[in-house]
Amino acid sequence: MAPTVPWPSNGSSRAALRCLVNGEAGSDLDVADRGLAYGDGLFETLAVRAGRPCCWLDHLDRLALGAVRLGLPPPSPARLKAEAGQLGAGVEHGTLKIILTRGPSARGYRPPPEPRPTRILMLNARAALDTETDSHRRGARVRLCRTRLGTNPQLAGLKHLNRLEQVLARAEWTDASIDEGLMLDAEGTLVCGTMTNLFLADGDRLRTPLIDRCGVAGTARARVLAAARAAGLDVREQRLRLTDLMRAHGAFLTNALIGIWPIRLFEGRTFEPSRLPWALLEPIHARLLQPESDW
Amino acid sequence: MAPTVPWPSNGSSRAALRCLVNGEAGSDLDVADRGLAYGDGLFETLAVRAGRPCCWLDHLDRLALGAVRLGLPPPSPARLKAEAGQLGAGVEHGTLKIILTRGPSARGYRPPPEPRPTRILMLNARAALDTETDSHRRGARVRLCRTRLGTNPQLAGLKHLNRLEQVLARAEWTDASIDEGLMLDAEGTLVCGTMTNLFLADGDRLRTPLIDRCGVAGTARARVLAAARAAGLDVREQRLRLTDLMRAHGAFLTNALIGIWPIRLFEGRTFEPSRLPWALLEPIHARLLQPESDW
Repeated sequence: MAPTVPWPSNGSSRAALRCLVNGEAGSDLDVADRGLAYGDGLFETLAVRAGRPCCWLDHLDRLALGAVRLGLPPPSPARLKAEAGQLGAGVEHGTLKIILTRGPSARGYRPPPEPRPTRILMLNARAALDTETDSHRRGARVRLCRTRLGTNPQLAGLKHLNRLEQVLARAEWTDASIDEGLMLDAEGTLVCGTMTNLFLADGDRLRTPLIDRCGVAGTARARVLAAARAAGLDVREQRLRLTDLMRAHGAFLTNALIGIWPIRLFEGRTFEPSRLPWALLEPIHARLLQPESDW
Repeated sequence: MAPTVPWPSNGSSRAALRCLVNGEAGSDLDVADRGLAYGDGLFETLAVRAGRPCCWLDHLDRLALGAVRLGLPPPSPARLKAEAGQLGAGVEHGTLKIILTRGPSARGYRPPPEPRPTRILMLNARAALDTETDSHRRGARVRLCRTRLGTNPQLAGLKHLNRLEQVLARAEWTDASIDEGLMLDAEGTLVCGTMTNLFLADGDRLRTPLIDRCGVAGTARARVLAAARAAGLDVREQRLRLTDLMRAHGAFLTNALIGIWPIRLFEGRTFEPSRLPWALLEPIHARLLQPESDW
């Protein structure tokens, strides 16, 4: 089904980009928006398959929780769903990004007493990564980033718009054979990848860094935690160090657009993806990239 | 002199706002801009007097230094000056904000190899604070914020667009009689105000927090440090704690739009603004809010 509104083309991206700003087709934002001024807002990125987003409610819940924590009026789920459906129509494999900001305001950090939030949906009619290819299954080549994550429990877990640390970390390499970089916090504790969460796997034991001081609490990460606990595995969220990763039998990354992504190589240490608990992970991976049935 | 281009009015702010985006009159930004997506950029705010910005080179230098540190192509000083002059024309007391972002890009944290930066200038034809009034001279009423600053030496000092911590700190109070809030880092060290830098004054000794782990290295702060050193005062940038503030004879805040702002009250402790070294501070204050002569 083709979209029924004319999508303005966006010159900044090679792939076709469809945008809605506060429900209107367009790709312009007021320069007085606090999303630009201060990164005062949140975002979500979702895989789209067969015109429908994947794990819709997971992302909606995180967005609503983030809005509460930042003191933003929560968006209307029905409106977001209608707009996501409108953008996704006819797209086989794509990526949907939702941005919610505190909207425009006069100068100054003080939030306006009655904010008029800005709601932006952007659909890129191209998948983030072809997860059916051998290169995905063979596993990710991962490096360690020098850029550290500052700690702030008030912002930890949120997918907010203050992402300079991730930008600087991702700017550390241009070698196309490197897929991802892991990041430490100021104390040298392992936290996450620039765009992924991290799990270590040792037999029936899964470990993942706590996301209580920095990092994003990924929706795919939450799915893995829930499924592993339901399956009776020994699952721990805890402080992890580089030595824990180096000694683990296996390790994998999670991301809502990529699913489960085994680590094959990290700074000279190789991991064997086949040793991961695929009986658990395979269904989660499939579910992560499965379009919503109730849509 | 009236501006020669029609300035689009901006509905988000009550005061008249004039904008240039990449040199063109307008107030729209591409939603794919990395300034919105990640706060991937820098800003400056300058006082404007008699149509001319104050301390122009100080701000230009900090912007250029920030661009180097973030790996952004530095903006053309001549172009920025021409645009600032165009916007400031005819404005007696105003505020100029300059935003420089890494520009639009495809999805993902990775900076584009050849960025096309976005340059935004916004002029608000109203001063940030009337620094001639008694309330300014009487001194600021200041509180302590609960929101802490995360530490990241790579970003410390920069006036970048990741400002959620300042937003959350400023959201802590709505009492209009409170002028500013001071912020601590994760370790409880005093760093700065939400929009100001802090100085403690004891006779001929001036102390100000180090800005090496977090906080913004203010242009007004730099002016005070330079003038005090030139005058032979004992000036120290060091770690300071709340007890240092509580025991100080006097304290003041600095900000490019406000100048020198004595603290009168901090969490129950009163300070006597007249005990500050005004022989030093008065000329700095005047200079901070004096329009560029060589313009």
